[in-house]
Amino acid sequence: MHKNTRKPIGVLGASGYAGRELLGLLRGHDGVDVSFATSESEPRVDGLATVPLEESDRWWSDSEIVFSCLPHGVSSSVVDRIRTRGTRVVDLSADFRMQDDVVYGLTETVRPKLAAAELVANPGCYPTGAILGILPIAAAQLLDSSRTIVINAASGVTGAGRSPKRELLFAEVDGDFKAYGVGNQHRHFPEIKRRLQPFTGDVDVIFTPHLVPVQRGILTTIQVPVVAEMDRTTIETAFRELYAGEPCIQVFSDTMPSLRDVVYRNRLAVGVIPTQQVQAPTVTVVTAIDNLLKGAAGQALQNANLMMGYAETRGLAC
Amino acid sequence: MHKNTRKPIGVLGASGYAGRELLGLLRGHDGVDVSFATSESEPRVDGLATVPLEESDRWWSDSEIVFSCLPHGVSSSVVDRIRTRGTRVVDLSADFRMQDDVVYGLTETVRPKLAAAELVANPGCYPTGAILGILPIAAAQLLDSSRTIVINAASGVTGAGRSPKRELLFAEVDGDFKAYGVGNQHRHFPEIKRRLQPFTGDVDVIFTPHLVPVQRGILTTIQVPVVAEMDRTTIETAFRELYAGEPCIQVFSDTMPSLRDVVYRNRLAVGVIPTQQVQAPTVTVVTAIDNLLKGAAGQALQNANLMMGYAETRGLAC
Amino acid sequence: MHKNTRKPIGVLGASGYAGRELLGLLRGHDGVDVSFATSESEPRVDGLATVPLEESDRWWSDSEIVFSCLPHGVSSSVVDRIRTRGTRVVDLSADFRMQDDVVYGLTETVRPKLAAAELVANPGCYPTGAILGILPIAAAQLLDSSRTIVINAASGVTGAGRSPKRELLFAEVDGDFKAYGVGNQHRHFPEIKRRLQPFTGDVDVIFTPHLVPVQRGILTTIQVPVVAEMDRTTIETAFRELYAGEPCIQVFSDTMPSLRDVVYRNRLAVGVIPTQQVQAPTVTVVTAIDNLLKGAAGQALQNANLMMGYAETRGLAC
Amino acid sequence: MHKNTRKPIGVLGASGYAGRELLGLLRGHDGVDVSFATSESEPRVDGLATVPLEESDRWWSDSEIVFSCLPHGVSSSVVDRIRTRGTRVVDLSADFRMQDDVVYGLTETVRPKLAAAELVANPGCYPTGAILGILPIAAAQLLDSSRTIVINAASGVTGAGRSPKRELLFAEVDGDFKAYGVGNQHRHFPEIKRRLQPFTGDVDVIFTPHLVPVQRGILTTIQVPVVAEMDRTTIETAFRELYAGEPCIQVFSDTMPSLRDVVYRNRLAVGVIPTQQVQAPTVTVVTAIDNLLKGAAGQALQNANLMMGYAETRGLAC
Repeated sequence: MHKNTRKPIGVLGASGYAGRELLGLLRGHDGVDVSFATSESEPRVDGLATVPLEESDRWWSDSEIVFSCLPHGVSSSVVDRIRTRGTRVVDLSADFRMQDDVVYGLTETVRPKLAAAELVANPGCYPTGAILGILPIAAAQLLDSSRTIVINAASGVTGAGRSPKRELLFAEVDGDFKAYGVGNQHRHFPEIKRRLQPFTGDVDVIFTPHLVPVQRGILTTIQVPVVAEMDRTTIETAFRELYAGEPCIQVFSDTMPSLRDVVYRNRLAVGVIPTQQVQAPTVTVVTAIDNLLKGAAGQALQNANLMMGYAETRGLAC
Repeated sequence: MHKNTRKPIGVLGASGYAGRELLGLLRGHDGVDVSFATSESEPRVDGLATVPLEESDRWWSDSEIVFSCLPHGVSSSVVDRIRTRGTRVVDLSADFRMQDDVVYGLTETVRPKLAAAELVANPGCYPTGAILGILPIAAAQLLDSSRTIVINAASGVTGAGRSPKRELLFAEVDGDFKAYGVGNQHRHFPEIKRRLQPFTGDVDVIFTPHLVPVQRGILTTIQVPVVAEMDRTTIETAFRELYAGEPCIQVFSDTMPSLRDVVYRNRLAVGVIPTQQVQAPTVTVVTAIDNLLKGAAGQALQNANLMMGYAETRGLAC
Repeated sequence: MHKNTRKPIGVLGASGYAGRELLGLLRGHDGVDVSFATSESEPRVDGLATVPLEESDRWWSDSEIVFSCLPHGVSSSVVDRIRTRGTRVVDLSADFRMQDDVVYGLTETVRPKLAAAELVANPGCYPTGAILGILPIAAAQLLDSSRTIVINAASGVTGAGRSPKRELLFAEVDGDFKAYGVGNQHRHFPEIKRRLQPFTGDVDVIFTPHLVPVQRGILTTIQVPVVAEMDRTTIETAFRELYAGEPCIQVFSDTMPSLRDVVYRNRLAVGVIPTQQVQAPTVTVVTAIDNLLKGAAGQALQNANLMMGYAETRGLAC
Repeated sequence: MHKNTRKPIGVLGASGYAGRELLGLLRGHDGVDVSFATSESEPRVDGLATVPLEESDRWWSDSEIVFSCLPHGVSSSVVDRIRTRGTRVVDLSADFRMQDDVVYGLTETVRPKLAAAELVANPGCYPTGAILGILPIAAAQLLDSSRTIVINAASGVTGAGRSPKRELLFAEVDGDFKAYGVGNQHRHFPEIKRRLQPFTGDVDVIFTPHLVPVQRGILTTIQVPVVAEMDRTTIETAFRELYAGEPCIQVFSDTMPSLRDVVYRNRLAVGVIPTQQVQAPTVTVVTAIDNLLKGAAGQALQNANLMMGYAETRGLAC
C-alpha cells in the first residue's frame, strides 16, 4: 500500500491508559497516520510529540477521524466543536452513550450503521463485557425477563484511570479486592440497562463492579434467568449461533474464560453453563475482555476500521 | 498464669497454609501448649519439629484438643481413631460438615453447644463468608425465599492449598482472575445450602467462587431478595441487632468492607445496601474475611477457646 | 500494670505509612498512651481522631516522647519547637541524621546513649539494612578498606511514601522493577557513608537502590572486600559474635534471608558467604528488614523503649 | 511471499515458558511453518497439537531448523541425534554454552558466523543481560580489569520454569524478594565468566541473581571498574558507538531503563552513569531485557533468522 493512502487520524487525550493503548494500535496500523495527539501532562507519549488540546484545532478539519479519549464531562464540548468541521469522531468517553441519535458502537450489534456514522459513542468497558454475555440468550428467546439478571464484574486497575489518587497506589491496591458502586450506583449501570433494553425489553438488572489487583482485564459473571431448564449444548448453541463468524468473539466449550485468555487481544471470550440445583432455571455466563482493548481502544479501532471501509480487524490482534 | 495450667494441644497437618496459621496462633496463646504437630513433608514448621502422622498417636490420649488440618477425605478416619481415645477434636477439613450429629462450628450460631462439644466441624471459608452475610436478613424476617440468593465470592490463593500445582504458580496466577466451580459445582455449594436451611428454609442459591491474585482473604458479594423495599437504616439495623456484641463481627456503616479491612484478623466485616432501580426488592451484602483466620484457623481457635472454657477471642486479634 | 503508669506519647504525621505503622504499635503497647496524633489529610487513622499539626502544641509539654513522622525538610523546625518545651523526640525524618550532636538511633550501636537521649535521629531504612550488614566485618578487623563496598538494595513500595504520585500507581508499579538514584545519587548515600565511617574508616561505597513491586521490606545484597580468603564458618562467626544476644537480629546459618523472613517483624535477618572464584577476597552479605518496622517505626519504638527505661522489645514482635 | 517458501521448523519442549513464547513467535512469522512441536505434558500448546518427543524424529530430517527448549542435561543427547540427520539446531538449554566449537549465539557478537552455523548455543538470560552491559566498556579500552565487576540481577518468575514447585507458588512468591545462588554459585556464573573473557581478558566477576515477583523481565545492575574518571557523555558514547545501528539494543540518555521498557519486546535497553563520590573510578550500568525474548526465545529467533538468510528482526518486535 502506498504511504499516501494512509488516512490522517487524531487522538485527543493520548496520555491516559486508553489513549496510550489507542495510540499504540494506530501507530502499528498500516492504513492510518497519526497526524496529532494531545496531552496536557506529557510532552511525549510512546515517542510521539504531543500538543496541548487547545493547539490541536488546526488539524481537526483535515483528519479523517478524531478519537476522543478525554475525560467524561470534558469530551462532549470538544467533540461538538470538531463535528462542526465535518470531521467524524469516535468518542471513548461516556458523554454520548445515552443519546439515541448517536451510534452506540458495540460493534457486533451496529455494523450496518458504522459505514456512514459521523459520531460513534464507544461503549464502556463494563457494558461491553456484560451486554455481549446476555444478548444471545435474549436473541434465542430464552430469557425470562420477569426475574432479575445479576451481573458481577471485576476490573483491572487501568480501568480506574491514570490520574494519581491515593486509593490507586500500589501499596493500597496490592493484596486488596473490593466492590464499589454497590447497589446499582455505578455510572455504567444506566448504560447497561439502556443498551440492553432493545434486546431484552424491560428487565431487572443488578450490577456490582469490583476492583481486582491486576493491570488489565474485566471478568464478568452473570446469572441470567431463563424460561426453562436446558442442557449445556442448548445454551452454548445460542451463543454459537449469534456469534458465528464473529472475528472478535470466542465462545468456549465446556470451560470458562479467564483474564489470561484475553489480555492484549481485542477479543471477548465467553463461556456458559446451566446453573445446577436451582428451582428457577438460570444459566451462568462468564465473559472476559481486555478493558483497554475490546473494552476501549480496541473496539474504538474496530469501529473506526468499519467507518473507513477497512477490514474490521485491521491492526488488531483478536 | 502458671505454665502448668496450659492445656496440651495437637495439630495434624501443620505444614499447609491453614495448619501453619493455626500453629502460629497456638504458639502465641498463653493457655495452651502445642505438644505435637504432624507433617509429612516438612520436618520443621515455624521452628517447631514435626512428626509424621503415624507417629503421633502416643500423644493423642493426653491432648485436650486435637486440631485436624488434614486434607478432605483423609481427615475423617484419623479423627475417628482419635475420638476413640476420648479426645476432643476440631476438624478443619470438609469431612464432617454435612453430618447432622456433629457441631457445625460457625461460632456465632452455635455458642451454647461448644462447651460440651466433642467434635466440631469447622466451617469452610466460603460458607463462613456467605452464611454470616445472609443470617441477619433471615432472622429479621426480611428474606423473600421465593426468589434466588446470588452469591459471588473471590478468594486469595492460599485458599487453594500449598501443594505444588502448575495452575497455582506465580507466573500463572499473577495478572489473572477467574471463576471456577461455576454453575453450583463447587464443593462448598452443598455446605452453604445445608447450613443456611435451618435459618432461611428452602431457597434457591447460586454460588460462584473466583480466584483473585492475592495471598489472603475472601470477599463475598451477595444479592439477597427481600420482602419489601426498605431504606439503608432498616437493613443495617437488622445486621446490628443480630450481631450486637459480637467480638469478631464488624458491621460497617455506609461503606463496604474490602480485604484490607480484615486480613490478619479473625474478623468478618460486613456492609449492606438496598439495591436501587430494581422492581423486585433486593439488598446487596458484602462480607470480607481472612480465609486463613475467620475462614479457617482463627475460627477453629475461636471454637476451641469456648470448648476449653476460655474467653472466646483469647489469642486472637479480631 | 496500672493504667496511670502509661506514659503519654504523641505522633506527628500519623497518616503516612511509617506514621500509621507506629500508631498501630503504640496502641498495642501497654506502657504508653497515645495522647495525640496529627494528620493534615485524614481526620481518623486506625480509628483514632487526629488533629492538624498546628493544633497539637497544647499536648507537647505533657508528652513523655513525641515521635515525628513529618516529611523531610518539614520535621526539623517543628522538632526544634517541641524541644524548647523540654520534651524528648524521636525523629523519623532525615532532618537530623547528619548532625554529630544528635544520637543516631541505630539501636544496636548506641544503646548506652539512649537512656539519656533528648533527641534521637531514627536511621533511614536503607542505611539500617546496609550498615548492620557491614559492621561485624569491620568489628572483626576483616574489612579491606582499600577496595570498594558495593551495596544493592531493593525496597517495597511503602518506602516511597503515601502521597499520590503517578509513578507509584498500581498499574505503573505492578510488573516493573527498576533502579533509581543510580551512581550514588540517592539521599541515603551520604547517611550510609557517614554512619559507616566511625566503624570502617574511609572506604569507597557504591549504593544502588531499587524499587520492587511488594508492599513491605528491603533486601540488601552487599559485596564486602575482606583482607583474606576465609571459610563460611569464619565469616559467620564474626556476625554471631557481634550480634550475640541481640533480640532484633537473626544470623542465618548456610542460607540467605528473604523478605518473607522479616515482614511484620522488627527484625534484621542476615546471611553471609565467602564469594567463590574471585582473586580478590570478598564476602557476600544479604540482609532483610521490614522497611516500616526495623527500617522505621519499629526501630523508633525500640529506641523509645530504651529512652523510657522499658524493655527494648516491649510492644514489638522481633 | 508464496506459502511454499515458508521453511519447516520444529520445536522441542514447547510447553515450558520459553517454548511457548517461541512457538507464539514462530506462528506469527511469515517465513516459517511449524511442522511439529513436542511436549510430554500438554497435548496442545497455543492451539497447536503436540507430540511426545520420541515420536518427533520422523520430522527431523525435513526441518530447516529445530529449536530445542528441552531441559538442561536432557537437550544435548537429543540435539546430537538431530545433528546426525544434518539438520541445523538452535539449542536454548545450557548444554552447549561452554563448548568452544559451538557458536555462542549472543547475536550482536557473532553475526558473521550465523549464516553457516550448524549448531547455535543460545545464551542464558542472565548472561545476555550482563555481557551486553559490559562489552562497550571493554571495547572502548575503559575497563580496569585489575578490579572486580559486580553484577546484581533480578529475574521475573518465568525464568525459573513452569514445573510445579512449592517455592514458585503464587502465595510463596507474592510479596517476597530474595537472592539465590549467592557467592558465585549460580550456574550462569561460569557462562558469564567464560563468554566475557574474549572481550575483557581475565577479570574478577561477582554475580548475584535475585527473584522478583513479576512474570517477565531481568534487570541487571552492574558496577564496572574503569581506568579513569569520566563524564557521562564519554561513557554513553562508548555504548552508542558499539551499538550504533543495532536493531535490538536501545541506549538510554540520562535515564535508566526499567522492566517496563522491555517486556514483550526482543530488546536490550541500557543506561550508564559514572558513579559519584568514589575514589576508584567506576561506572554503573543498568540493562533490562525480557527474559523470555532477548533472554531466550526472541534471541533464538534472531539467530535463526540470520541462519536462514532472513532479516534479523523478522517476526520480532524490538
